[in-house]
Amino acid sequence: MRKISILGATGSIGTQTLEVLRFHKGEFELLGISAHKSVDKVIGIVKEFSPKVVAITEKEAYEELKNRLIKEGLSCNLVFGMEGLKKVASLDEVDMVVTSVVGMIGLEPTLEAIRHKKDIALANKETLVVAGELIMREAKNFGVKILPVDSEHSAIYQCLQGNENNKISKVILTASGGPFRGKNLEFLKSVKVGDALKHPKWTMGAKISIDSSTLMNKGLEVIEAHFLFNCDYDNIQVVVHPQSIIHSMVEYTDGSVIAQLGTTDMRLAIQYALNYKERKGNVAGNLDFYKLKELTFEEPDFKTFKCLALAYKAGKIGKLLPAIMNGANEACVDLFLNEKIRYLDIVNTIEECMENFDYNKEVTLENVINIDKEVRKFVYSKWS
Amino acid sequence: MRKISILGATGSIGTQTLEVLRFHKGEFELLGISAHKSVDKVIGIVKEFSPKVVAITEKEAYEELKNRLIKEGLSCNLVFGMEGLKKVASLDEVDMVVTSVVGMIGLEPTLEAIRHKKDIALANKETLVVAGELIMREAKNFGVKILPVDSEHSAIYQCLQGNENNKISKVILTASGGPFRGKNLEFLKSVKVGDALKHPKWTMGAKISIDSSTLMNKGLEVIEAHFLFNCDYDNIQVVVHPQSIIHSMVEYTDGSVIAQLGTTDMRLAIQYALNYKERKGNVAGNLDFYKLKELTFEEPDFKTFKCLALAYKAGKIGKLLPAIMNGANEACVDLFLNEKIRYLDIVNTIEECMENFDYNKEVTLENVINIDKEVRKFVYSKWS
Repeated sequence: MRKISILGATGSIGTQTLEVLRFHKGEFELLGISAHKSVDKVIGIVKEFSPKVVAITEKEAYEELKNRLIKEGLSCNLVFGMEGLKKVASLDEVDMVVTSVVGMIGLEPTLEAIRHKKDIALANKETLVVAGELIMREAKNFGVKILPVDSEHSAIYQCLQGNENNKISKVILTASGGPFRGKNLEFLKSVKVGDALKHPKWTMGAKISIDSSTLMNKGLEVIEAHFLFNCDYDNIQVVVHPQSIIHSMVEYTDGSVIAQLGTTDMRLAIQYALNYKERKGNVAGNLDFYKLKELTFEEPDFKTFKCLALAYKAGKIGKLLPAIMNGANEACVDLFLNEKIRYLDIVNTIEECMENFDYNKEVTLENVINIDKEVRKFVYSKWS
Repeated sequence: MRKISILGATGSIGTQTLEVLRFHKGEFELLGISAHKSVDKVIGIVKEFSPKVVAITEKEAYEELKNRLIKEGLSCNLVFGMEGLKKVASLDEVDMVVTSVVGMIGLEPTLEAIRHKKDIALANKETLVVAGELIMREAKNFGVKILPVDSEHSAIYQCLQGNENNKISKVILTASGGPFRGKNLEFLKSVKVGDALKHPKWTMGAKISIDSSTLMNKGLEVIEAHFLFNCDYDNIQVVVHPQSIIHSMVEYTDGSVIAQLGTTDMRLAIQYALNYKERKGNVAGNLDFYKLKELTFEEPDFKTFKCLALAYKAGKIGKLLPAIMNGANEACVDLFLNEKIRYLDIVNTIEECMENFDYNKEVTLENVINIDKEVRKFVYSKWS
């Protein structure tokens, strides 16, 4: 029985990971979970899966959960904050940690898990964006597998199987194009939160839905792909594919392209990572080529969706620039979701941060955490 | 340097194989070739590649070539007929035999090559159709790899890499649909040779072009896939995909589909087989997803293109029925190309043979050759 922990067990990917565990009943043991503040959901998970350790990152929720656990007669080790996350990430018996927290808060616990030789099922792309060099180096040092849970990167991972000795000429990341595909800047000016949350193809959390609408999500994925697959940015191509059936592709130097296709169900990638390298069960259903009719492809509109261009720029320049971009984006998305800024303020503020902060430092944990704090502080005070 | 022989060196696949050898100059040595009667082409190949052995299967061409070789001062061992083919297939130093002859004439030399432990780059699908059981058993016995050169089967082969321990739920063979896709039986009644030879996507020889127009080619490929990939007929799905960009796919039991895509250039599959298992060079160019716009999919029309249904039937029933079907098809296509029968006589005659010949015998070389002869005799006398 594979033993796992889930960081961010109550979010979208966390919840879907639990569904995969339910589907593969008896094959996994859930030893640790973390959540921000969803006390009810945590109670449900404790009742159903009996994890030994639960970490909560919001103070009030922590206190409330403590009482609820007693009241309900449930026993588990309740831990708090970043130390709690690290504890869940490094439990002795755990084989694999699913990192499905949102944002660069995942960085420290992910490093902790790696240093305790836990394989990582990585859904927390911001971690690789802000500190890809560091993460991949440590994973190599500790002999740890990083199994991508993003559907695009899972696809690429699958397309690389059996081609260990073959050179990639290009990684082709598909993008649905988000809810505003085909729109212009004039349209984007007046976009509201509700519009941006309506993703045409995937069911996702709020932050990633906004990122998908700005194409920043695809930009983060470009950087993620760079680190995961050791691929030059010039060899990572984004192709808009609105049906999201081809989850991504790899072109080899012989001109042959290997693609992975599937339903638009994140559980397919989660299941693949959890069971690697066996393909087990079928939680996400099958494609029917007689019904899907057509797959289309377009070049992305880098001018209207400038976040994608900014991400390429940040990735290519490297050092702390991806962390600056990411910190600014996380803060701006939070402000937009709380209706403190307008839609296009997101990209403009990110660009401003990328131009004004000093990125020319080594990618160490300390430097990344510091620049992230500074950038967030700047963004929140700019819009307060 | 890999040493190879090509059976059928002057046909469409043979010629494209030579182009691949030219492209990979210095990496292959061509030791043997066979041709039916294209003396000029053979002279060209001898001048360029200096094969040690040349087999010719037509008597007059054999005599003509003998004189031409002397006249041109070219030296090679010229051999004749089936014995000649077997000789080329079993040359001591050869590592791999490319079987690109057309029709079940390839059966004996392919078996000869296998029994001399030559890996097979198999373009001669009729061989697997008529005696798949026998071929695959012998390949296993002699530790020989059968590398498919059909673009569909090469695609499937590529999609299987790295998944040795994973169960296939379905092989998805794509089909362009041929020049008469969307037409009805009424239209097919008056089809002329010239119409049937115009394939919309692939450049191919005459026999396979007619087979593509009737969908018999896809039927033969279904049987080929059954034997190559040990896959039940119920798990082989034909999907019409007119753009021929996805060359075929494999669906695994987890619902994930792996596809291989490429330009519509047979040399991609030839190059893959010759270099297996390294992806080397790029003879066939690259896809451009910004330009290809859309890929579409349809269910095949089994009623109008009954050959496909007949092939499934022959495959499922097995024994000598695929050989009966194939023999009838080879004879009918020959008659149609020579304007001795009408287009729909092809399928009707095949069906008649499948209904009237006794298929209930073991698949031995002798039985296959005998039934093939009988069926051809019946067809030619029926239409004489």
